[in-house]
Amino acid sequence: MKDVQKFKDNREVDIQKVGIKDFELPLLIQRKDSSQPQIVCAKAKVNVSLPRDYKGTHMSRFVEILTEWQTKNLAGFDIKVCLEKIVKHLEAESGDLEFRFKYFINKKSPVTKNVAAMAYDCSFEGRIENGDFKFVLGVVVPVTTLCPCSKEISENGAHNQRALISVKVSYDEESQSIWLEDLISMVEACASCEVYPLLKREDEKFVTEKAWNNPKFVEDVLRDVVVELRKSPRVREFEVECEAFESIHNHSAWAYQKESKRS
Amino acid sequence: MKDVQKFKDNREVDIQKVGIKDFELPLLIQRKDSSQPQIVCAKAKVNVSLPRDYKGTHMSRFVEILTEWQTKNLAGFDIKVCLEKIVKHLEAESGDLEFRFKYFINKKSPVTKNVAAMAYDCSFEGRIENGDFKFVLGVVVPVTTLCPCSKEISENGAHNQRALISVKVSYDEESQSIWLEDLISMVEACASCEVYPLLKREDEKFVTEKAWNNPKFVEDVLRDVVVELRKSPRVREFEVECEAFESIHNHSAWAYQKESKRS
Amino acid sequence: MKDVQKFKDNREVDIQKVGIKDFELPLLIQRKDSSQPQIVCAKAKVNVSLPRDYKGTHMSRFVEILTEWQTKNLAGFDIKVCLEKIVKHLEAESGDLEFRFKYFINKKSPVTKNVAAMAYDCSFEGRIENGDFKFVLGVVVPVTTLCPCSKEISENGAHNQRALISVKVSYDEESQSIWLEDLISMVEACASCEVYPLLKREDEKFVTEKAWNNPKFVEDVLRDVVVELRKSPRVREFEVECEAFESIHNHSAWAYQKESKRS
Amino acid sequence: MKDVQKFKDNREVDIQKVGIKDFELPLLIQRKDSSQPQIVCAKAKVNVSLPRDYKGTHMSRFVEILTEWQTKNLAGFDIKVCLEKIVKHLEAESGDLEFRFKYFINKKSPVTKNVAAMAYDCSFEGRIENGDFKFVLGVVVPVTTLCPCSKEISENGAHNQRALISVKVSYDEESQSIWLEDLISMVEACASCEVYPLLKREDEKFVTEKAWNNPKFVEDVLRDVVVELRKSPRVREFEVECEAFESIHNHSAWAYQKESKRS
Repeated sequence: MKDVQKFKDNREVDIQKVGIKDFELPLLIQRKDSSQPQIVCAKAKVNVSLPRDYKGTHMSRFVEILTEWQTKNLAGFDIKVCLEKIVKHLEAESGDLEFRFKYFINKKSPVTKNVAAMAYDCSFEGRIENGDFKFVLGVVVPVTTLCPCSKEISENGAHNQRALISVKVSYDEESQSIWLEDLISMVEACASCEVYPLLKREDEKFVTEKAWNNPKFVEDVLRDVVVELRKSPRVREFEVECEAFESIHNHSAWAYQKESKRS
Repeated sequence: MKDVQKFKDNREVDIQKVGIKDFELPLLIQRKDSSQPQIVCAKAKVNVSLPRDYKGTHMSRFVEILTEWQTKNLAGFDIKVCLEKIVKHLEAESGDLEFRFKYFINKKSPVTKNVAAMAYDCSFEGRIENGDFKFVLGVVVPVTTLCPCSKEISENGAHNQRALISVKVSYDEESQSIWLEDLISMVEACASCEVYPLLKREDEKFVTEKAWNNPKFVEDVLRDVVVELRKSPRVREFEVECEAFESIHNHSAWAYQKESKRS
Repeated sequence: MKDVQKFKDNREVDIQKVGIKDFELPLLIQRKDSSQPQIVCAKAKVNVSLPRDYKGTHMSRFVEILTEWQTKNLAGFDIKVCLEKIVKHLEAESGDLEFRFKYFINKKSPVTKNVAAMAYDCSFEGRIENGDFKFVLGVVVPVTTLCPCSKEISENGAHNQRALISVKVSYDEESQSIWLEDLISMVEACASCEVYPLLKREDEKFVTEKAWNNPKFVEDVLRDVVVELRKSPRVREFEVECEAFESIHNHSAWAYQKESKRS
Repeated sequence: MKDVQKFKDNREVDIQKVGIKDFELPLLIQRKDSSQPQIVCAKAKVNVSLPRDYKGTHMSRFVEILTEWQTKNLAGFDIKVCLEKIVKHLEAESGDLEFRFKYFINKKSPVTKNVAAMAYDCSFEGRIENGDFKFVLGVVVPVTTLCPCSKEISENGAHNQRALISVKVSYDEESQSIWLEDLISMVEACASCEVYPLLKREDEKFVTEKAWNNPKFVEDVLRDVVVELRKSPRVREFEVECEAFESIHNHSAWAYQKESKRS
């Protein structure tokens, strides 16, 4: 049976990235507070470079290697070994691997201490290029923002809304690893108030008043997260985005920052 | 060239609905306040019944007939003629036609009277069955809701958020027609406050205070819309849905009602 | 602290459905071939009726009760007990509960017998009304369809594409329960060919030729599924939808059927 | 009334981007073959930099300026003037403006010459930084790809599917402008076959056989587009992505390239 992928190609195009997208698989994610991993439903995007001489890459190998990784505990940086294997088996010079998944954290309501699970969109992204591995950890954190302007100028009340704070952080060594749980907590502390899955009336009073006492524009949220990430010695690069689904408009307020500490 | 669709089928299944989905086309929608129609980008879903004897329907005919309708002004009920043609040309007993599109309405801010366009998801749906035509007009209206419980129990502030009120109304005669503009205005009046594309500071003060003085659960919004629709002599059936993207949770509060005045 | 939800309401609107939507939680789904449940990430929609006298329902109770159910094995019909508790604790006359989740099944490729996981969108839906419980099991199954007309009229080849077959089946008793695995297998057998997560070259030859030898319109797929469901003694009502993402168009071909065997 | 946005901020964070997202507005897009513009429904994302001293930007000004641009014909590069005004009025050093919209082109079927409209996702993106303006034109083009490997190894048939080719091109001068129509045509010629809104049987035979005679991996499609863009003297930078919704899998094959001719 012919291997069409190995046919010669003469268009002189070294392809930068080719692979598969939206491949779903279960994964075991290591937790901060438990020796038991969390089983998640992940979406994978994985690709490698392809030299000009070859017509195509071997797509089924991506699936074979990812499938082996379903039963291993992953704590973010561990995707390095998986990606190294992919790059090697596909005889490539560079490659990318990305897993996106919902990760549950039990949240305790602020006053009555009722516990329920809340889902966060998280991601592990890795890239191998020239033998170097770069890792990016990502979280998307829903929060409340309360508008300082609206509060200041109005006799009563202030518009507030759900917002999403997206943060991606890069670090260079496994020893620098940051837990999803810690990154999420840090981010939640930068909003007007956290959101919760379960709130009884005493809790609702608390979060309403906390947001009221803590008004923040998307600019304020962004700056508070940036200040925290600048201080963190583990973080080498970061990207922050805050999108507030304004309750007085049908569009979003949005702010973005990307910084690198690499020399 | 063989007409495979006309092949005999012996599985004894009269198909209820077969056709095309997610077909995009430009349409001319008649406006309340202008003789000039609004050009919109619509998504069509159209289908007919297919008797047990035939293997398949003729999909290209749907596209041909829809394409003819691109240049005609449509005011909702007018899709009756288009659907009648579809049902006739496909020799069917019943058929459905649905157009979904964004419709822009110029909104004036409440204090400074600044004008900007705001987009609403709208739909025209028709069904022919046993020779009868039924028409459904749909709008999805973004608004603000402010929580009465949060206001009552908190020392200051009250959580509020963007919400969507979806309304579908049926009427039997062209003479009963309701303008998109009128249905949207009626719905907006049932929320804690409307949302606007453009608000200067004086406007922001106004909407913040209006929502504060007008707290509503999704239950309240739903009931207020239901009361209005019960009163409308033109409306024969209606469906109302209110979804509030709670600013203190990562999930929605949701309420739903469907009523018919048909005997 | 006042219970605003219990305030009297005088608008004379008995609300049909009010509750929460898009609430995410982990669930344990019972498998056909294992005593170990599968842990999934589910999206819940749950609601109850609310009599005209009360201003609002108690949203936090939905979350409390759902949270208790996170640690119980669920095999579809079991959501009856959860929904009964919800209806009782909210003192309601009727209620709905819906869980949607990705469910993984290991699929073996047809020739080389390579195994990898494939995700299917599944749902459990229940409704209590007048003391009766109705259960609906849902699956969305990706498959291949190959066009009989294109094959017949062309000298070589035939257009084919990914399609989604969505099936919902109702049954009345726990003893009538149908496994997700069995419903999915039945549906896959009705397409031109199944799709797989992992295919080596020998497998790719097999699926290409199988689809070629098995051309089907969306009408054919729909009819084959309908014939199977009519035969199944357990199924009391069903709904089938087939959407093919045509490879020669930018829109879908679509067919739909709903049948009931209830007298 | 206080201008809270002008309050001093001391966190020492110069914000890179702050503005609004998902703002919908009608726009007039200039066509290649008509003096009449096409009216589209656009989604805008617009933002500016904000120096460390200021607490917030003035969000309503974005809406005011965009609203002025609703009545002007836009041919891509023209967004420069709009963005210059935004950057000036918000006293910013840099800014971004992005419009995304569906653009209709009438397509004639290959044999019977039947005409119908087809919608393409298009975008105009501009950035002003250090006084320089950079423009990016984007199109997303649905096409057919037919797998060379499947064709080679199978006795009959070959799997094929809908794919999306996304292309972004940058140019530096208005005189270098490229029409959406021309970019789309060039891209369509690089696939196994184009897709069409309306195909009669003679046309369906034609496209089936054309794809059969023109098998292409995502790698082939990508390379053919890259070769074309390398040849175009107007293009200074480009980005190409090809995603094929494999008819034999539930995931996509995907390839990506980004190149710059800037020295």
